[in-house]
Amino acid sequence: MTGAGSEGHLHCVQRSEGGLHCPSASALLAEIADIGCDRRRGGYSRHVFDGAERELRGWFADHAARLGLDTETDRNGNVWAWWGTPGPGAVVTGSHLDSVPGGGAFDGPLGVASALTAVGALRARGGTPARPLAVVVFAEEEGGRFGVPCLGSRLLTGAIDAEAARNLRDPEGVTFAEAARAAGLDPARIGPDPEALGRIGTFVELHVEQGRGLIDLGSPVAVGSTVIAHGRWRFTFTGQGNHAGATPLSDRRDPMLPAAATVAAVRRLAAGVPDARATVGRLVPSPGGTNVIASTVDLWLDARVPGGGTQALVDDITAAARAAAADEGCALTVRQESCSDTVAFDDRLRAELGGLLGGVPELATGAGHDAAILAPHVPSAMLYVRNPTGVSHAPEEHAEPADVERGAAALTDVLEHLCR
Amino acid sequence: MTGAGSEGHLHCVQRSEGGLHCPSASALLAEIADIGCDRRRGGYSRHVFDGAERELRGWFADHAARLGLDTETDRNGNVWAWWGTPGPGAVVTGSHLDSVPGGGAFDGPLGVASALTAVGALRARGGTPARPLAVVVFAEEEGGRFGVPCLGSRLLTGAIDAEAARNLRDPEGVTFAEAARAAGLDPARIGPDPEALGRIGTFVELHVEQGRGLIDLGSPVAVGSTVIAHGRWRFTFTGQGNHAGATPLSDRRDPMLPAAATVAAVRRLAAGVPDARATVGRLVPSPGGTNVIASTVDLWLDARVPGGGTQALVDDITAAARAAAADEGCALTVRQESCSDTVAFDDRLRAELGGLLGGVPELATGAGHDAAILAPHVPSAMLYVRNPTGVSHAPEEHAEPADVERGAAALTDVLEHLCR
Repeated sequence: MTGAGSEGHLHCVQRSEGGLHCPSASALLAEIADIGCDRRRGGYSRHVFDGAERELRGWFADHAARLGLDTETDRNGNVWAWWGTPGPGAVVTGSHLDSVPGGGAFDGPLGVASALTAVGALRARGGTPARPLAVVVFAEEEGGRFGVPCLGSRLLTGAIDAEAARNLRDPEGVTFAEAARAAGLDPARIGPDPEALGRIGTFVELHVEQGRGLIDLGSPVAVGSTVIAHGRWRFTFTGQGNHAGATPLSDRRDPMLPAAATVAAVRRLAAGVPDARATVGRLVPSPGGTNVIASTVDLWLDARVPGGGTQALVDDITAAARAAAADEGCALTVRQESCSDTVAFDDRLRAELGGLLGGVPELATGAGHDAAILAPHVPSAMLYVRNPTGVSHAPEEHAEPADVERGAAALTDVLEHLCR
Repeated sequence: MTGAGSEGHLHCVQRSEGGLHCPSASALLAEIADIGCDRRRGGYSRHVFDGAERELRGWFADHAARLGLDTETDRNGNVWAWWGTPGPGAVVTGSHLDSVPGGGAFDGPLGVASALTAVGALRARGGTPARPLAVVVFAEEEGGRFGVPCLGSRLLTGAIDAEAARNLRDPEGVTFAEAARAAGLDPARIGPDPEALGRIGTFVELHVEQGRGLIDLGSPVAVGSTVIAHGRWRFTFTGQGNHAGATPLSDRRDPMLPAAATVAAVRRLAAGVPDARATVGRLVPSPGGTNVIASTVDLWLDARVPGGGTQALVDDITAAARAAAADEGCALTVRQESCSDTVAFDDRLRAELGGLLGGVPELATGAGHDAAILAPHVPSAMLYVRNPTGVSHAPEEHAEPADVERGAAALTDVLEHLCR
């Protein structure tokens, strides 16, 4: 047994005294089970740079240090833990530690925990990788605080304008720049990071599946094929706030009416487009009093259509929303907050990994991931781990311990293969 | 000029050195214009026992002391400022200092400020009232924090069960008992207060009008005739939280759909009932993430129908909501949070005050008030002051300074008359 930082022969042990720590991915997840619990909603609420997410960053850095990795935070708040000298051609794996509000335990952390376990297992197998290897934790993957999903990887790759990102606001009105400064970043340096991007030779992200694909396929693990086009739009309906008892119905301009009509239109219009998904999961009337006719209602549309149909669907929804707003004498503004085209992961890499893993199936997904943001820039791949509930972004999200370890073992094999 | 507390001949002066302070009602309102401003929503957010509302209680106590009144807080958090020895047969006036979220400057504070100004004017007219006179500030009139409007007067009169009130929760999960304890009350003593109620001989509340009645009537002041029956119901739709991208439409049980259908049904069904008002101004999807299908949606229905038709309307709305919930595979629970029958103010008192004020018009209202809670127990009346926008529960709520002073002068005359 050698000490932390050694690159000699290692054994994978749990909490060996004085040696390298290499808990299983399930054991790692158990360590963070109490961080960021949301007692009101259930599940976890861990948002970029909040107390829970920063505690998770500390937990990650501690484990990386125990594995002898050198940790750095880049200009956009993404964390990198390096085995070997950072540089071009690196094999990079990782995911995120933030959650949606009231999210599950696996979405994001499973990929980070599996990456740490895989690095520990590789160390245990002995030797030094022929290429630099890094574990990355991307910032604000869910967009749960500032509204734009995959914000860390979008900034890294230049997929979002730096100034626009700095000015994003959370629900309390805090800008991303302000939150980043409070977390120790220099807001002026937020933006494209070609040096960090240029070091990535290959990127692989392991993630819990967010649907029922692997249940149906009867497989614990799959390789990702495509990520559906997706985007977010904010609809703001403006009417006239007033007294709920003293205002006759005929005198009202109540923005709740067109907002409700839009929720109905979203489902109706999406149902007419094959394989489309469209959702209103966030809707905020203001001022939000029981005895108050709202003055404004904001709702957020999440729309995803395979191929190029997303904008057409959003256009149809917008037209329905405009008509409903006009019927109630309300104004409407629509603002796109993010948009991503359909991504197909690297063909060669997919085939290579599928073969390496004994012919595991390929799986398309409607969920976005940082790997899909990186895919246009570097060969990228995804591994999915079976979710026996088929539910995600909710406390019911799950992965059986045996599947978690199968996923970590698959990631270990993939990293070893790519590092040759 | 005599000192504070004297009951001799007084002159109404503004900030006279060492003498009694008796600013105009407009000047009093100007003093509190910076307390509880809501920068996000506009207007004011002053909720029972929060920082702003407590600051307003302090402001009230200061002015009461300057007028030589003795201030006490009752077991339910209502504040009473007494001129003369508290006891049966008292003439009581007042209103409230809390607001709806993002409310106007006049709803509540106009009645309190006018009461202080009227007491000052009566002192200036000289002599001692033949009956005790009190100015009261009722707690949680809007129900903006704990959901039940007129909570302070309902507790006073026993119109709400004390234990039910103690267990009311604000949006952060704090109970009314906990908030009351933090404000210095004894939660065990919350409840009916026959002694305090028994002291009230007559109650008069001055309030800004919350509709367009006095615009149409061309009068600055009116006497209240009736308050429409009104109530609040909480609808909770429960579905299955899930991923907005990975969940096919056919697999969803999305509670936003029946919630939206219910918003539409509220308007459609209320439009079929003469003079009915029904509103959904508060709607909260949980967890409330853009890329998350909600697991639950709470919406609050405010329904008011003249005569006895409120429950029938709510039943129809509930049936529509149940059908919409069933269509989406969602569950629905409906809970009544408050309900008040139509109240007609005391006939004799209405006629008496109308005559005293030179034949000002009478006005029915759809807005609830503490005076309507007291009306079944003691002769009660309301004075309304014209609102040139017709808008209330919103920043646009207004009263012209000349009308404010007309209202305060009318209240002064009414109090002088009743105190004989």
